[in-house]
Amino acid sequence: MTRPGQHCGLRGVTVTLTTREAIARAAGALFEQHGYTGTSVRAVAAEAGVDPALVIRHFGSKEKLFLDTMDLQGHFGGATLGPLEELGERLVATLLGPGRDVRLSAYRAMVRATDSELVRARLLDALEEMFVGPLTPRLPGPHAELRARLIGAQVAGLLDQMALVEDPVLVSVDPDLLTRTYGAAIQALVGVPDPTGGPVS
Amino acid sequence: MTRPGQHCGLRGVTVTLTTREAIARAAGALFEQHGYTGTSVRAVAAEAGVDPALVIRHFGSKEKLFLDTMDLQGHFGGATLGPLEELGERLVATLLGPGRDVRLSAYRAMVRATDSELVRARLLDALEEMFVGPLTPRLPGPHAELRARLIGAQVAGLLDQMALVEDPVLVSVDPDLLTRTYGAAIQALVGVPDPTGGPVS
Repeated sequence: MTRPGQHCGLRGVTVTLTTREAIARAAGALFEQHGYTGTSVRAVAAEAGVDPALVIRHFGSKEKLFLDTMDLQGHFGGATLGPLEELGERLVATLLGPGRDVRLSAYRAMVRATDSELVRARLLDALEEMFVGPLTPRLPGPHAELRARLIGAQVAGLLDQMALVEDPVLVSVDPDLLTRTYGAAIQALVGVPDPTGGPVS
Repeated sequence: MTRPGQHCGLRGVTVTLTTREAIARAAGALFEQHGYTGTSVRAVAAEAGVDPALVIRHFGSKEKLFLDTMDLQGHFGGATLGPLEELGERLVATLLGPGRDVRLSAYRAMVRATDSELVRARLLDALEEMFVGPLTPRLPGPHAELRARLIGAQVAGLLDQMALVEDPVLVSVDPDLLTRTYGAAIQALVGVPDPTGGPVS
């Protein structure tokens, strides 16, 4: 439990949480653990050590609290920027790298809550910000935007099987083998600059 | 509404629904439209024109009714059997082909209900039956089972973006272009027999 005003030590640094931060931290933990429908405003308030009315005053509604605390953006930020030749492998390595469990939990909670129009819109925003925006101008060859979206679909597919279906083979296979194998499939949509100068898809 | 004993004409053929069939048909329609949590046993019973106790007597529980009526199996059955050289395109064409809306609705309802362990197990069964079982012995090259699972992940990713996130570009783009483009990405995991005789991945 991380109450407002509490001092939390992290590597010897002492920080004081505001009420808003304490609520957000409690909500993030509960949503990731129990999902959207399994988490109540009352439970978040109890976990944060505040009155439920304060949760609503700070975030407006349970739906907005969920959207404000489930941060999918940024999870693939750096991975879309490096050399295109290794984009596929870099995306998979990023998915499987540090923060993997938080990433899988956030994705799981978001996808299971997609009967909410706001949640769908947020997932679409994340797709645009993480893949379509950065990749469309960089991908050589025709239909770059479509291919950027489909790269997002491939990443979503792997998240799906690991976070939602919990495929026992994928969650336990050697991450390097998974990175090389699925990276090659993503790479098929990247296209590489033709050494003669013209782009090929 | 399709009540038991009712005569439904389909292409001039008259069929009589049993109580079980009437419940299953009503449940399928309601689950696809409103999802698992948005559909009650009472609503299914009302739609089928039977007493709610009959729903439980025939199917045991709402969860079992859901699993019995949301049929994902068979949706890709034939597509995994034809020539490997066109497997990727054939899988996408099958996904986008006749029955697409039912397929997307069933997938949507199942994935949103994956907080149920039984639903996760059913999705994993579907992956095994539709992709891992038929493809593992057919794929040339190393790590055939892993690649079969990842082909399933790619299909799930496209279903995701179309059914759950409802990506407006993917749902409206020329299906032939989508089939060629995403088919090529799936094909990267298929591998093709080496003309010299040895398998390459």
